[in-house]
Amino acid sequence: MKIEPRTLKGFRDFLPKEARKRQYVIEILRKVFESYGFEPLETPTLEYEDILMGKYGEEGDKLMYRFEDNGQRRVAMRYDQTVPLARVVAQYQNELPFPFKRYQIQNVWRADNTQKGRFREFLQCDIDIVGMGSGFIGTDAEILAVVNSSLQKLGFTDYKILINDRTNFDGLDPKAVAVIDKLEKISEDGVRQELQAKGFDPNVLEQIKQKAPTERIQIILNNNDFTGPNVEYSPTLARGLNYYTGIIIEVKVEGFDAGSIGGGGRYDGLIGMFANQDVPAVGFAFGFDRLMEAMDEKVLFPQNLSTVKVLVAVEFSELENTSYKISDMLRANNTNVETYLNNQASLEKQFKYAEKKGIPYVVIPLNETEVELRTKNQAGEIVKKTISLNNLPDAIV
Amino acid sequence: MKIEPRTLKGFRDFLPKEARKRQYVIEILRKVFESYGFEPLETPTLEYEDILMGKYGEEGDKLMYRFEDNGQRRVAMRYDQTVPLARVVAQYQNELPFPFKRYQIQNVWRADNTQKGRFREFLQCDIDIVGMGSGFIGTDAEILAVVNSSLQKLGFTDYKILINDRTNFDGLDPKAVAVIDKLEKISEDGVRQELQAKGFDPNVLEQIKQKAPTERIQIILNNNDFTGPNVEYSPTLARGLNYYTGIIIEVKVEGFDAGSIGGGGRYDGLIGMFANQDVPAVGFAFGFDRLMEAMDEKVLFPQNLSTVKVLVAVEFSELENTSYKISDMLRANNTNVETYLNNQASLEKQFKYAEKKGIPYVVIPLNETEVELRTKNQAGEIVKKTISLNNLPDAIV
Repeated sequence: MKIEPRTLKGFRDFLPKEARKRQYVIEILRKVFESYGFEPLETPTLEYEDILMGKYGEEGDKLMYRFEDNGQRRVAMRYDQTVPLARVVAQYQNELPFPFKRYQIQNVWRADNTQKGRFREFLQCDIDIVGMGSGFIGTDAEILAVVNSSLQKLGFTDYKILINDRTNFDGLDPKAVAVIDKLEKISEDGVRQELQAKGFDPNVLEQIKQKAPTERIQIILNNNDFTGPNVEYSPTLARGLNYYTGIIIEVKVEGFDAGSIGGGGRYDGLIGMFANQDVPAVGFAFGFDRLMEAMDEKVLFPQNLSTVKVLVAVEFSELENTSYKISDMLRANNTNVETYLNNQASLEKQFKYAEKKGIPYVVIPLNETEVELRTKNQAGEIVKKTISLNNLPDAIV
Repeated sequence: MKIEPRTLKGFRDFLPKEARKRQYVIEILRKVFESYGFEPLETPTLEYEDILMGKYGEEGDKLMYRFEDNGQRRVAMRYDQTVPLARVVAQYQNELPFPFKRYQIQNVWRADNTQKGRFREFLQCDIDIVGMGSGFIGTDAEILAVVNSSLQKLGFTDYKILINDRTNFDGLDPKAVAVIDKLEKISEDGVRQELQAKGFDPNVLEQIKQKAPTERIQIILNNNDFTGPNVEYSPTLARGLNYYTGIIIEVKVEGFDAGSIGGGGRYDGLIGMFANQDVPAVGFAFGFDRLMEAMDEKVLFPQNLSTVKVLVAVEFSELENTSYKISDMLRANNTNVETYLNNQASLEKQFKYAEKKGIPYVVIPLNETEVELRTKNQAGEIVKKTISLNNLPDAIV
């Protein structure tokens, strides 16, 4: 029986070209996170179902991948990285340093409707500081500083880090808050109409818009030496989730309309769920797919992300060993080199292979001491020169 | 209801200390793989069940994590990285460059009995070259070169890369081969006895031991300039799996008795399973957990893998901003810096925090232009000096 090679809806293969781009972004984020003292954490793909169930509302229970394993245990696949963090904090409270500053870059799974830019397996990039209350303003500010620094290093220029204090909505019905949260999508009139339709005073929008920053938000706004000039107060920013207790954060890239590329905030009531104590926490997560999309749209990826710099071709099989020697020599000089493995292929075929893989240089051994070096100039024309082996490493830039 | 924070048997949390060690190894492997022109590939965690079923024998079907998803599809979790590679090769055959040289570093899941060093979620590190037959000896040799280079860069010194040709066992009953494969575990007498008990001629062991290398293995042995001096012919090496068709490879670290840290070989009949054609392939996989164990035992990890170099302490809250300024200054100088976030903590507590996280330097702002710099000397004694801010970056080595 022939089985059709195919992938599940919402699940993706990342072929080298795409995988390299992902790696490029992950490495930048990792470096920035580590430069602020955040450390890596990994948690398992599968958890006992009771660890995750009921933590994400009804919708979460419905969208979660859950099943019975071979040992009749009810298990569930990671749905986010916050509940596992809460479990880790409770389970290893005597081992972990506090404040516990961790980053986590792993996949999560949600059986959601698939649509443009929404997948069932996707990567999340979280940073969180656990164990410091909002009284230590530096904590909230540090999250903003890391977000700002990440965006800078990725190459973004026009963006806003919107902040608000969730307590600005205290006393307001959560359903009214949810309507206000749609401001950008449905405009002010839309919000007023929907508020009215749902039985709320439409003027509540005006009142919220005029709210002054809370004291702690004002302190952060006054200290933008550390958080960058892109932090901006947005009194109508609500963030969907009800578990926020202090600052809330959302990143918008100007001219990128697919939505925010990340968000977060303070959630002092969540991390203690498995421990028998209150544990304050603040964090932020980049939506990796949105981030990649925004980078594509803003052309922020380097033109050639190929990890291979040189293809050493093989023209005459008696020079095959020379090809391998040249490759090893360049590798010893920290250059990524591929030796073409088919000693019977035409040079034409080898050039095409280099082209397809985006390898910028091709080296063709002419004899045991000389090679032809081929590359393209700025104008895209092929340039070739004959040089001695000794000069080869310096000729590759 | 209180839910006990716990993990499933065979599944692991990796706290920062362990996660850093894993990252250290992964980064070295990745660099070596890329230096030979291998490129990253990622495949989904979940596949249609029929893609994986029946590909790993009865045992595989039994140990595979499989279930019905919310859309009544039968799905299965990645069990290895070879069958997904075969699917990818068939699915994207017109897009991929051939030879297709990819590496893949992802988790796989097997509901196996847990025991020391065996887990249900574990990382595999695979390299494979798809599309080149064994006639191109450089292909098989390159796999050996990458394995050797990886081991060198990880710091291993005493190891053997054992090779054999699976065709050496042609004509022999697979059950007899399986007995010979146990040679190291049960010794020569044990093998002879078991062969006899199973109705095979016990002298078959002697015959196998005296087999000369096949021609292609001999060529590789003659060319150890490229594969390193650790490659060794082992006529009794069989590798459990029946799908090998040419060279077989296994790495043994001297004095590490938990078994081989990786293996592989040529399997020309497997990758074409979803395509309608024969696709030759050769590859190797490091057993990541074994590799980590062996590195621990041989003390190959750098002493301090902490990604954070400096803790900037806060002694007086009026100098808190100075702490942040110092941190940013050091960060701009490519140093990973953590600013202590609790401006009410004693210095003693901050020193302990640095100790716990393995941060080698502590900086204490004394005023706006001077700091105290604390670190330990070789003897483990604390050394402190007062220096001006301008000289701080150079004082941190």
